[in-house]
Amino acid sequence: MERHSLKTWAESAATLVAVAAGRAPADMVIRGGKLVNVHTREVLDGWQVAIAEGRFAYVGPDASHCVGPETNIIEANGRYLIPGLCDGHMHIESGMLTPAEFAAAVIPQGTTTMFTDPHEIANVLGLEGVKLMRDEALIQPISIYTQMPSCAPSAPGLETTGYEIGPEDVAEAMSWPGIIGLGEMMNFPGVINGSQQMLAEIAEVQKAGKTVGGHYASPDLGPEFHAYAEGGPADDHEGTCEADAIARVRQGMRMMMRLGSAWYDVESQITAVTEKGLDPRGFILCTDDCHSGTLVNDGHMNRVVRHAVACGCDPLIALQMATINTATHFGLERELGSIAPGRRADVILTSDLSELPIEKVIAQGRVVAEGGEIAVTCPHLDWPTHSRETVKLGKTLVAKDFEIPAPKGAETLTANVIGVVENQAPTKALKRQVQAEQGLISAQNGIAQIALVERHRATGDVVNALVEGFGYQGEMAMASTVAHDSHHMIVIGTSREMMAQAADRLGEVGGGVTIWKDGEEIALVELPIAGLMSDRPAHEVAAKAEQMVKAMEACGCTLNNAYMQHSLLALVVIPELRISDLGLVDVTKFELTTLFEEPA
Amino acid sequence: MERHSLKTWAESAATLVAVAAGRAPADMVIRGGKLVNVHTREVLDGWQVAIAEGRFAYVGPDASHCVGPETNIIEANGRYLIPGLCDGHMHIESGMLTPAEFAAAVIPQGTTTMFTDPHEIANVLGLEGVKLMRDEALIQPISIYTQMPSCAPSAPGLETTGYEIGPEDVAEAMSWPGIIGLGEMMNFPGVINGSQQMLAEIAEVQKAGKTVGGHYASPDLGPEFHAYAEGGPADDHEGTCEADAIARVRQGMRMMMRLGSAWYDVESQITAVTEKGLDPRGFILCTDDCHSGTLVNDGHMNRVVRHAVACGCDPLIALQMATINTATHFGLERELGSIAPGRRADVILTSDLSELPIEKVIAQGRVVAEGGEIAVTCPHLDWPTHSRETVKLGKTLVAKDFEIPAPKGAETLTANVIGVVENQAPTKALKRQVQAEQGLISAQNGIAQIALVERHRATGDVVNALVEGFGYQGEMAMASTVAHDSHHMIVIGTSREMMAQAADRLGEVGGGVTIWKDGEEIALVELPIAGLMSDRPAHEVAAKAEQMVKAMEACGCTLNNAYMQHSLLALVVIPELRISDLGLVDVTKFELTTLFEEPA
Repeated sequence: MERHSLKTWAESAATLVAVAAGRAPADMVIRGGKLVNVHTREVLDGWQVAIAEGRFAYVGPDASHCVGPETNIIEANGRYLIPGLCDGHMHIESGMLTPAEFAAAVIPQGTTTMFTDPHEIANVLGLEGVKLMRDEALIQPISIYTQMPSCAPSAPGLETTGYEIGPEDVAEAMSWPGIIGLGEMMNFPGVINGSQQMLAEIAEVQKAGKTVGGHYASPDLGPEFHAYAEGGPADDHEGTCEADAIARVRQGMRMMMRLGSAWYDVESQITAVTEKGLDPRGFILCTDDCHSGTLVNDGHMNRVVRHAVACGCDPLIALQMATINTATHFGLERELGSIAPGRRADVILTSDLSELPIEKVIAQGRVVAEGGEIAVTCPHLDWPTHSRETVKLGKTLVAKDFEIPAPKGAETLTANVIGVVENQAPTKALKRQVQAEQGLISAQNGIAQIALVERHRATGDVVNALVEGFGYQGEMAMASTVAHDSHHMIVIGTSREMMAQAADRLGEVGGGVTIWKDGEEIALVELPIAGLMSDRPAHEVAAKAEQMVKAMEACGCTLNNAYMQHSLLALVVIPELRISDLGLVDVTKFELTTLFEEPA
Repeated sequence: MERHSLKTWAESAATLVAVAAGRAPADMVIRGGKLVNVHTREVLDGWQVAIAEGRFAYVGPDASHCVGPETNIIEANGRYLIPGLCDGHMHIESGMLTPAEFAAAVIPQGTTTMFTDPHEIANVLGLEGVKLMRDEALIQPISIYTQMPSCAPSAPGLETTGYEIGPEDVAEAMSWPGIIGLGEMMNFPGVINGSQQMLAEIAEVQKAGKTVGGHYASPDLGPEFHAYAEGGPADDHEGTCEADAIARVRQGMRMMMRLGSAWYDVESQITAVTEKGLDPRGFILCTDDCHSGTLVNDGHMNRVVRHAVACGCDPLIALQMATINTATHFGLERELGSIAPGRRADVILTSDLSELPIEKVIAQGRVVAEGGEIAVTCPHLDWPTHSRETVKLGKTLVAKDFEIPAPKGAETLTANVIGVVENQAPTKALKRQVQAEQGLISAQNGIAQIALVERHRATGDVVNALVEGFGYQGEMAMASTVAHDSHHMIVIGTSREMMAQAADRLGEVGGGVTIWKDGEEIALVELPIAGLMSDRPAHEVAAKAEQMVKAMEACGCTLNNAYMQHSLLALVVIPELRISDLGLVDVTKFELTTLFEEPA
């Protein structure tokens, strides 16, 4: 395994001082460019940069005294030098890629630092999963920091996850290298209500002097919002409108504005800076969740910065929001996020600050990408066998496992049906009349079956229910082991036979997504690591994911972002009606409910 | 001893959340004011504040749900609520006051946080002195953080201090509560030349995740300046012009702009923000050194902010430079420096943001001053006896100890005379013809005698030399145990008898400043603690210091700030000619020199 190790500033200081003073040659000098200084918010024409030990050894008007016979000279040819881009909050698993393959996909886009919350794998593999993600993160050629997941399960009592995270796990993780703080504290009702466990987790992070991530997913900005802020989260990325952004920054939280594959929260919030004139230092750009297709086709943080500029933000301010603001937030402003002495030498050459073409990327002093092509290896961890064997069904599933028996003698019933709404995360709790046939409720009238198949403990349990809104027609089934947040398996279909086939297929390949139509598998995305990630390159995964979308369409689904809807139907923290391994969950009341209404 | 203890945010979180949510009453609510939000740089009219456990428990438009029957309601009556002011870098000893009495003097001025470098006492009492200062700091009703002194002695090999500080001392101090980082790294030639000891000290601080203070006292902004920045200092307060400020901030250092009793560096540097438009987040206001008279008559950080505004700075930006910028710099932005959830409830009521009258001061949730009067006790440490017995002369000094014998047979000699220049810290190395009388060189033609009396190890050693520029006339002597940085005793006089009397007098009272004229003591400032500080109130010390200035005038001295000149004459890091316990020091060459020139 290629291991890229970077000495600390302190370990490199003697060399850095010697280079700056002209007593020792730099490894690399970049000259002939225009340097973007995110400390002062200036463009410094002609400023040069010397690099040694992977860090900036001189940043100033003339680095000629740092040049030796072996120094690699890079001519910027009038282009801008900007700091490498930082993603302030994101989940690598959303790309369906391992940290290595995610890094390989985003390095050519100019991302050199990511703050990642491996929340999904924590639900499957617990603290060990976090550690594995962290281990692979630490061997990458860019800086990937890990936020310790805070909420597994996300809804205690309403679901059973593979593993649970508690304050003692958080305390342990805070002592690990590479752990930067706590991942988004999603249990905001817990914090507001003074949950001892949630406050204990936050306390462990504060005690360690690290950063507590927030997640306040409510439009209410009254006392409950203030109570959440008092609990300690230092940032939030759940705001969706200008008022949300202003409210958070006024509380001394940093507002993380998202542009992900399905999140569009920058345009609606950046007016707090561009129109209301708030001090921009409190604002950070991030992606939260990006699919591999977005990474391959549209970019990563370069896409977000470009978008912020298109929304009217001054390019230098937008760059601050993706560099120094982020670094300062995580206590890393002396380590990265600017082109300044001693920092990690993460720098991008670009010929335009608005369009932001990423022409050359240097990370920790090495050229890691050039003209959109990666120039280094992103080493893979040797993932342990059990991390690839997480789809434990306990038996071969058959059609009978997906039967929904009608109450004895009933023919017409009122069912509580999950209603999917296009482009919205919340579902509707629908009441629908359904007809029994031979004592069973099957797919009918645009209503499909949905099943939650337990896959962590091999119990063989299947919870069956009904869903409306995908538009599936004919005989089909789709199964996915990406099933937020507990990541059991969600199977949706119109055919019980194919639902069983799809589920068994994922058991066979170790997880992923499969789509069946008329008895044949028509799409498969293998995600063997924890049932969540592939260790194949992003473009391969993106191609398979595209095929998956086409297959859903072939089954009659015309919903935008339908795969995401599928994978969120077990997310029992977002209203109104969801499914878990424990049954149907009324998320307006945070309690289990029944599939059929009692007859009045 | 009254001990004021504040729980951590984590320890208080359950209460804070409960107050914000309306489940528990606040201790205090402030309403009817205009809140200055330094995160967003806004004035929020009508915003209210609730306080519990000494921290902000609610900051928002309406705190009425936080009010219980016991809640202390403070009506702001339309005044501004601003965060308590922070002094980013300063030496308590410069006020000739203990931390307690310094705090008592500045609390009514609105200072609620100080970052203090007990560099002076470190030279006298070593690490124990730092600890004693820290101990008294930690029991004050405001937040006083300690920077571990970095350079004692300031000039190794050219002076002998009471104690020396090394990397192992720094490493030890980093583990102490209340230590925020390293005090100004004054040995900038050492850093630039890669001194192992200096880089090791910095490394210990970086390893501990704390802040390294800088001190680059040179106008050269070329490679040497860059080399210093590469060494790791995160701030600097030695800039004196706009170019200095811009250069530092561009290197990712924070520029600390001083307004002390004798430092006037704000007006000349703040144009970097007000005219050149640099991002103000990199700028911090501080005092560095304030005499007790300044504190009593002109104020402290309120004086600095007021001055910054008078220099054309937007009042909200000036306040940021004395609150959140400082807090962020020291990694404390979640702990203080703004009126925001969970932070220490440090808040000032003022009716004007430009004139900045300090009408009420609340620190950690308590009213600590009202209308310029302190409202709390600032507890004194029980200083150990040996900290009050630091003037160790080893013998009773007599006139003979101050004799300067001329080389045998010489009558006219060329002497290297220290030339004091009004309003400048650097001295001139003068060459003066002097006449011997009875084989001795005495005061003559505006030249006085100067002696460095060893006082740390009771060696009885006296180094004698000559000084010009004070203007002393008639028979007089002045002695001071404040003698930067080694703090031996400097005696200047025209009468050897009185020089001996003055020195012995300080031995008797345990240190301070004494002035003798015509055989009588005409002024005395007792500074019994380490020979540097009084534990009497600031107004008493200021009155005695004023008397001291008058006494110097009575002896013929018309120099501005003459006492400071006196006390800096052993500071063997500032050119050109100084005195130390080892002899006369040529600070242009950093080597010892002779009092008399060899005849050509």
